[in-house]
Amino acid sequence: MAKEQSVLEKVVSLAKRKGFVFQSSEIYGGLNGCWDFGPLGVELLKNIKEEWWKTMTYREDVEGLDAAILMHPKVWEASGHVENFTDPMIDCKQCKARFRLDTLAEQIPDKKIEKLLKEFSENIADDIAESFNEVVKSELSSTEKFEQLLEDTDVNKLLLSMTNCPNCGTKGEFTEPRSFNLMFKTFLGPVEKNENAIYLRPETAQGIYVNFLNVQGASRQKLPFGIAQIGKAFRNEINTKNFLFRTREFEQMEMQYFVKPEDDEKYFEYWKEKRIEWFKQMGMNGDKLRFHDHPEDKLAHYAKAATDIEYEFPFGWGEIEGIHNRTNFDLSRHEEYSGKSQKYFDEETKEKFIPFIIETSGGVSRSFMAFLVDSYIEEEVNGETRVVLKLHPKLAPIKAAIFPLVNKDGMPEIAREIEKDLRPFLRVFYDDKGAVGRRYRRQDENGTPYCITIDTQTLSDGTITVRERDSMEQVRVHKDELLKFLLEKFR
Amino acid sequence: MAKEQSVLEKVVSLAKRKGFVFQSSEIYGGLNGCWDFGPLGVELLKNIKEEWWKTMTYREDVEGLDAAILMHPKVWEASGHVENFTDPMIDCKQCKARFRLDTLAEQIPDKKIEKLLKEFSENIADDIAESFNEVVKSELSSTEKFEQLLEDTDVNKLLLSMTNCPNCGTKGEFTEPRSFNLMFKTFLGPVEKNENAIYLRPETAQGIYVNFLNVQGASRQKLPFGIAQIGKAFRNEINTKNFLFRTREFEQMEMQYFVKPEDDEKYFEYWKEKRIEWFKQMGMNGDKLRFHDHPEDKLAHYAKAATDIEYEFPFGWGEIEGIHNRTNFDLSRHEEYSGKSQKYFDEETKEKFIPFIIETSGGVSRSFMAFLVDSYIEEEVNGETRVVLKLHPKLAPIKAAIFPLVNKDGMPEIAREIEKDLRPFLRVFYDDKGAVGRRYRRQDENGTPYCITIDTQTLSDGTITVRERDSMEQVRVHKDELLKFLLEKFR
Repeated sequence: MAKEQSVLEKVVSLAKRKGFVFQSSEIYGGLNGCWDFGPLGVELLKNIKEEWWKTMTYREDVEGLDAAILMHPKVWEASGHVENFTDPMIDCKQCKARFRLDTLAEQIPDKKIEKLLKEFSENIADDIAESFNEVVKSELSSTEKFEQLLEDTDVNKLLLSMTNCPNCGTKGEFTEPRSFNLMFKTFLGPVEKNENAIYLRPETAQGIYVNFLNVQGASRQKLPFGIAQIGKAFRNEINTKNFLFRTREFEQMEMQYFVKPEDDEKYFEYWKEKRIEWFKQMGMNGDKLRFHDHPEDKLAHYAKAATDIEYEFPFGWGEIEGIHNRTNFDLSRHEEYSGKSQKYFDEETKEKFIPFIIETSGGVSRSFMAFLVDSYIEEEVNGETRVVLKLHPKLAPIKAAIFPLVNKDGMPEIAREIEKDLRPFLRVFYDDKGAVGRRYRRQDENGTPYCITIDTQTLSDGTITVRERDSMEQVRVHKDELLKFLLEKFR
Repeated sequence: MAKEQSVLEKVVSLAKRKGFVFQSSEIYGGLNGCWDFGPLGVELLKNIKEEWWKTMTYREDVEGLDAAILMHPKVWEASGHVENFTDPMIDCKQCKARFRLDTLAEQIPDKKIEKLLKEFSENIADDIAESFNEVVKSELSSTEKFEQLLEDTDVNKLLLSMTNCPNCGTKGEFTEPRSFNLMFKTFLGPVEKNENAIYLRPETAQGIYVNFLNVQGASRQKLPFGIAQIGKAFRNEINTKNFLFRTREFEQMEMQYFVKPEDDEKYFEYWKEKRIEWFKQMGMNGDKLRFHDHPEDKLAHYAKAATDIEYEFPFGWGEIEGIHNRTNFDLSRHEEYSGKSQKYFDEETKEKFIPFIIETSGGVSRSFMAFLVDSYIEEEVNGETRVVLKLHPKLAPIKAAIFPLVNKDGMPEIAREIEKDLRPFLRVFYDDKGAVGRRYRRQDENGTPYCITIDTQTLSDGTITVRERDSMEQVRVHKDELLKFLLEKFR
C-alpha cells in the first residue's frame, strides 16, 4: 500500500513539474477541490474529449449539444436535486467545524475508532442492540462498521456523544445531522432574493433532457438516438480528495440515448460494452478496468439499473464512468413540472410515449487522471531509471519532437524546415538544448510518441531518424516522407 | 433599419429551426441571457475554437492552459473586480424594479425622452445649467443626451425626479444610484458566510496571470511568449440583448502575451494585425470588420492602449475581440496581493522585472454570431430564393452530405459505403429523403460545403457528383478518390 500510494505522489509531482496539472490559484494558497490544466494537461484533456466526441457523435444516431451551465431553477426541482441532492452534515458546537456524517470516520485514526467501537458496545441500550450487533459481527473493517452505525438514526446519537471532534478534540458536542444541498447557489440579476436563486448545474444530463424535443425536431432523428455533450459541472463537496478524483469543479462527457421502453435492457448492455471498449481502445490496461453493478437496493431514485466502469487507481477501485438506465423518470418529471409534453411520436405505430433513457456518464477529469496513472511507467534502461508516459499516440499532448543533433552544420536549418512542414498538422516541439539522450528523456516524461533527430547522415542523404517512445527503436525516414509517415501513425 | 433588423430575426429563426441555437431551459420559459448550442451549433462553435486554438497555440511561443472557473477570492481583489466591476443601479421605490442607470434610456420611448428633455431644460437651476447646456446643444440623439445627463451627478437627481418608472409608470420614485457588482457570487463549503464567498470568473484572463510562473517554469519559455486559453466566464448583466451579443454566460478565447516592457507597442501592433487577419482568413467579410481604438480618457484602469475589432452586425458595429496593452498592472497587483514575486528573470541581462502583457481577448459566442450573420445569404436561383450559409469549409458543421439519387438500384448500398469511408475523417450526413433539389436546399441552410450524389452513372463507372455549395457547380469524381479529394479541400 505504501508503495502504491507513492505512485500517486509521483504522478502528482510529475504533473506539476511538466505542466499537466497545477493547483488552482496556487499563489494564493490554492482553492480546495479545483485544479488548472497546464500546457501539456490541456492538450491531453482536449485529446480525450476529442476522441470521445468523435467516437460518440461521428455516427448517424447521435447528435451533439452544448447547453449552458446556468439553467432555470425549476429544472432542479423537476430533477429532484433541490430535494435529494444532499449530504447529512454535523457541526462541532465548540469549534464550528463542519463534517459530512457519512465520511466522518475517514478523519479519525483507526485506533481511535476501534477504541470507540469497544466503548460503544459496552454502553449500547438493549432495545437498539440488535441492529448494532449485526454490524459489529460483520466482516467489515472498523472504519466501515463505524460508518454503518452512523447511518442508523437509532444509534448514531449515542455514538456521536462518545466521539471527539477531529478538529478541536472536544467530545460529543455535535449538532443534530442536517441535510446540506451540494448545489452551488447564486442569484440571477441584482436582487439576492430566493425567487432569483439559480444553481450551477451539478450534472450536465439535465441540459440534454430539457432539449430533447428541440434536438429531435431540428435533427429529424427517430428512436433510438442519442444526444452527447461535454461540459463543466459543479458540486459543493465537503470533502474533496485524491487529486482529480473528487473535485468541486469537474467536466463530464455524457451521452443520453433515447429508446423505446421495451428496448431499454438491450441498449443498456450495448452501451456498457461500447464504453468499456473505448477505454481499452485508448490504451488503458484492461486488467485495471472492471464493471461494478449497483445492487438493486442502492440504486438512485431515477434508475432501474446502473453499473460503474471502475479503474484501479493507486488508492483502490474508483468510478470513471457510469452507465445508467434512467427509465422515463427525467422526461416525465420535466413534462410534469413544465406542463409541456415531452412525448415522442412514433410515425410507424402512431403512438405517443415518453422514451426511456440509457445514460453513459463519464468524468473527463477522472479519465484524465486514470490515463495519466495508467501510462506512468518506470523502467530500467542501461542501468538507469527511465520515466515514461506510455500514452496512446492519439492522446499524447505533443505528437513529435524535433532535435538537431548539434546546433550547427546546417542541422538547425533542416530541423526548422521539418518543424514548419509538420506544425500545421501536428503539435510538435523543437528542442536543441543538451545531449540528445536527455532530450529523449524529457519527451518520454511528456509522453511524446515520436522523436525526430537530424544528424550528419541527414546532411548527405536527407534521411532523419524517428525514435519510437515505447520500444525506443529508431528507423530512418527520408525527410520528404516524414509527414506522411507520421500521419499514418496517428490514423 | 427595419430591413436590417429583420436579417437578425431571420438568422435567429434559422438558428433555432436548424438546431444551431436554442433558448436555454426553453420548456421553462427560458433563462434570460443564456443560450444552448444545438447539434449544428455545437459543431460550428467547436470549429471556431479549434481553428483559433491551432492558429494561436500551434506556434513555438504560445502555450495552452485550461484554468478552473472557480478561483480564490483574493484574485478578484487583486484584479480590481471586487472594487470596480460594478454598474450604477437604481430601484423604483414603488414596484421595486431595478434598472441600470446608464441604460435606463433604452427602456423609455423616444418621444417621452424628448418631452422629458424639454421639461428638464425649463426647470434646470442656474448653477448647474452650464454642464447641461453643453450636452443639450450637442449633436447627440435625444437618447444619448439623456444618457449623458444621467452620468452627471449634479443633474441626474433632478432628471430622475421627472422620469417615470419604465415598469410601473410611477414618477420620480427612484432610490439613489448604487454600485452593483456584476460578478456572480456563491459560497465554497456549506457555510454561507462572507469569508467563504467565491465568484464565477467574470473573465478568463486572471486564470492565466496567476499561472504565469507555473507555465513559464514547466515550459521553459523565454520572453516574449504567450499563454492561450478558451473557457467560460459569467457576468450578471442587468440588460442582456441582441441574441448572443450580450449574455450572462459566455465563452472567451484569450491569449496573454508576455513581453519586455520596452517591446509593448511593437507587439500590440503585431497582434492587432494578426487577429483581424484571422477573422478574414476564416471567411469573414473584410468590409464588415474594423478597428475601434479606445480614446485615452476612456481606457480601463489597467490599460495603456486598447482597440476593439468590431463587426458590423445588423444592429450596428459591435466588439468581437479586444486587443489590450495591460502593462504590468495585473502581475504587479498579484505580486502585491499574494506576496509572491511575479518577476521574470532574464538570463541574458541578469535582470528581474515584471513583464508587460498584450492581451487578445475574443468572444467565442460573439464570433459565432458574427460568422452566422456574415455567412447568411439569400439569393435568387432559377426564380426561387435560396437561403445559404456560406461558412468557411473549416467552420462548417457538416463537411459533406451523401445522397443516393433514388432509394433503390444499389444506390443506397454505395452511398452507405461512401459514408463509412468518410465518417472517421469528416462529419458527414446521410440523407435519402425527398427530391435531390430539396436535399441540396436543406444542406445549403446548414452551410454544408459539399454534397455527394450517387446516381445511375455511379452504377456503371463508379463516379459520383460533388456539388460545391457556393458556386453550385458539380464535378464527377471516382468514389475511390473521394476521400482524398475532400481532404484536400479542407486543408
